[in-house]
Amino acid sequence: MAHELPRAPLAPERFPNLLPVAGVELATAATNSRYKGRDDLLLMVFAEGTAVAGVFTRSKAPSAAVDWCRAALAATGGANPRALVVNAGNANAFTGKAGRTTVETVAAAVAARLGCAPEAVFQASTGVIGNPLDPAIITNELDGLLSRLSATEWAAAANAIRTTDTFPKGACRIAHIDGYPVVINGIAKGSGMIAPDMATMLAFVATNAAIPAAVLQQILAKAVDRSFNCITVDGDTSTSDTLLAFATGQNVRHGAITAADDPRLDDFKEKFDEVLLDLAHQVVKDGEGAEKFVSIRVSGAQDDVAARRIGLAIANSPLVKTAIAGADANWGRIVMAVGKSGERADRDRLAIFIGGQQVTKEGMLSPDYDEARATEHFKGREIDILVDLGIGDGRAQVWTCDLTHGYISINADYRS
Amino acid sequence: MAHELPRAPLAPERFPNLLPVAGVELATAATNSRYKGRDDLLLMVFAEGTAVAGVFTRSKAPSAAVDWCRAALAATGGANPRALVVNAGNANAFTGKAGRTTVETVAAAVAARLGCAPEAVFQASTGVIGNPLDPAIITNELDGLLSRLSATEWAAAANAIRTTDTFPKGACRIAHIDGYPVVINGIAKGSGMIAPDMATMLAFVATNAAIPAAVLQQILAKAVDRSFNCITVDGDTSTSDTLLAFATGQNVRHGAITAADDPRLDDFKEKFDEVLLDLAHQVVKDGEGAEKFVSIRVSGAQDDVAARRIGLAIANSPLVKTAIAGADANWGRIVMAVGKSGERADRDRLAIFIGGQQVTKEGMLSPDYDEARATEHFKGREIDILVDLGIGDGRAQVWTCDLTHGYISINADYRS
Repeated sequence: MAHELPRAPLAPERFPNLLPVAGVELATAATNSRYKGRDDLLLMVFAEGTAVAGVFTRSKAPSAAVDWCRAALAATGGANPRALVVNAGNANAFTGKAGRTTVETVAAAVAARLGCAPEAVFQASTGVIGNPLDPAIITNELDGLLSRLSATEWAAAANAIRTTDTFPKGACRIAHIDGYPVVINGIAKGSGMIAPDMATMLAFVATNAAIPAAVLQQILAKAVDRSFNCITVDGDTSTSDTLLAFATGQNVRHGAITAADDPRLDDFKEKFDEVLLDLAHQVVKDGEGAEKFVSIRVSGAQDDVAARRIGLAIANSPLVKTAIAGADANWGRIVMAVGKSGERADRDRLAIFIGGQQVTKEGMLSPDYDEARATEHFKGREIDILVDLGIGDGRAQVWTCDLTHGYISINADYRS
Repeated sequence: MAHELPRAPLAPERFPNLLPVAGVELATAATNSRYKGRDDLLLMVFAEGTAVAGVFTRSKAPSAAVDWCRAALAATGGANPRALVVNAGNANAFTGKAGRTTVETVAAAVAARLGCAPEAVFQASTGVIGNPLDPAIITNELDGLLSRLSATEWAAAANAIRTTDTFPKGACRIAHIDGYPVVINGIAKGSGMIAPDMATMLAFVATNAAIPAAVLQQILAKAVDRSFNCITVDGDTSTSDTLLAFATGQNVRHGAITAADDPRLDDFKEKFDEVLLDLAHQVVKDGEGAEKFVSIRVSGAQDDVAARRIGLAIANSPLVKTAIAGADANWGRIVMAVGKSGERADRDRLAIFIGGQQVTKEGMLSPDYDEARATEHFKGREIDILVDLGIGDGRAQVWTCDLTHGYISINADYRS
């Protein structure tokens, strides 16, 4: 039996106010399969002429839905998606031919009702790996879902796609193109099995901007690299990571967009990045057992790639994460993590800062270092670590959470 | 204050019986610095004509002792080491120029007493990173240590090099060269910050065989690759990993050895491998918080390197390790870990076995799979996982432990 976990201490006070997105309607339902007494199925329907872009797990054992979405994107070039179906509780991963049949059956059932091609039906599944997913659980709900479609059910949607998430995750921004406003909404789920490439999660972004699929794909890929690919909870990569972005082109007055580097997209791209980063941070804040939100900035590395690798080596180190959990300013473990990253580093130039205070200088403890101050910082909810390598211009920022007893408790009996 | 942890549940019943090694004498002392009431300093003295080989951490921020040993090996070609000094409690890592001065001071003090070059004095330090190590703590004890040298103090030596280890680790084998017996002894320490390249630990092996340094280095490198480089506790890499092997050439009747591929060395190499593997397994069994010893065999991978990477991806997955801790036969997490390894895999050929029982077949759950049996296996102390990729001849075996509340408890307040 799945059980509900208490709300994460880092959870935001409330779900943000998501605006309707012209051309998007949503409905949710409770299938009463894995989860009882709450919605676990989401249907989103898009206006004709919508464009879609996607980024997926790099796992070599992806879920049936991931295979399906990749093929649908390739077949359509991202043109004219009409629906998205998401179920929570069963990942439909490692389910063999039965898994493929399930996604085909669901796509056909939705397509028949909407009068579209099966490839216009995108899908995502999240939950336990290896259990067959009966398509009837989903298809039985379709007529009800279609009868309840509404433009306002974003909070319900964010809620329905949760698994071990303790709070629903959403973000909303208004961007301007040619001076005209467009809405960008995002929802996400994810709390464990979170690591870059991608963070293990599902995220769906929708905007009423009119952006061709190829341009949307470029914007999405860049934004993912600065957000979901810079967070980690436990270094594990899911079979089901899916991030889809839909641009409906409804109710917009801006001119035609044909290239991702069009300067008229600057504000849109900035706000799109913000939505993804906001969602990514919420995923970290809901990290299984997380008590602290940890930001790790790396500067002075050989290049940006090296900086990110160093940042992730620190963020993924169980010893760093447990030290933070225990409010022990054990900066030696940060040195260890830099050392193990494999990236160029010069011990005698390495400068570590905790909560703005310089800890190390010229290969040893800084003479002014006040450990009590660092310990005090580690006792807070938001931890700030800065590592300067002193050898180049590379920089990066990554985010993670601490590693606590809560993580062990949640994961040692997730399924039971 | 450092505190003693309860003996690991996977600990062997007793310390093995280590035979004297001709040409090696040992003594231990209590410096009463970090640890109170127990020995934390080891001196080993070697006969003239001994050869030494070494393998060290790949960390980019190695300890002062690692830097020293690397330089000493390069300067001497491994010829004629006379002493080894090991202290526990302070890693002398990230201690800048003061750290270098400490190793120089200790080497000079030992060399003066033994009448040898400073480069004949090897050193290793383990413990907290970033605290200055006063050389007087060590040099003050030297005369006492030298006065107490004995051929039999191997158990005391294994005990003195412990940090968070809950039991001393040793192994002994007798090998034959040209039909004549030689002794191979090994001691090791390590329990956290354990990952390949190398497992974070110190290990010292001594034999009375007469093996030239260059040959010893080749034998050592191969044996490490099959033992310490195949274990992981938490994926972290220490600043101080050191594995030194000494061959005294005392009391031996075998003929001269000049090449590592000499077939007369076959038995020696086999026993040398066994000593290292035995020590490596003991390190895993003392993994911080470990309740279960996990063997992961990978076969049918593209090649041996891919097989080891897949094995380590499984062994390092916090989700796999917590599932084992919770006796939850959540094999979907093994699929996830294979997928995230980045190595070639074909979901539909992947076969997973737990405790000898086939779990997956042709990309889905095997029809005969009995989850109760797998759960029962996961409740035991020794866990056996086999993954067959079905695409090539690559194979590997790696070892790890489960991830428990104990790991968090130990590491969230290691220093405090």
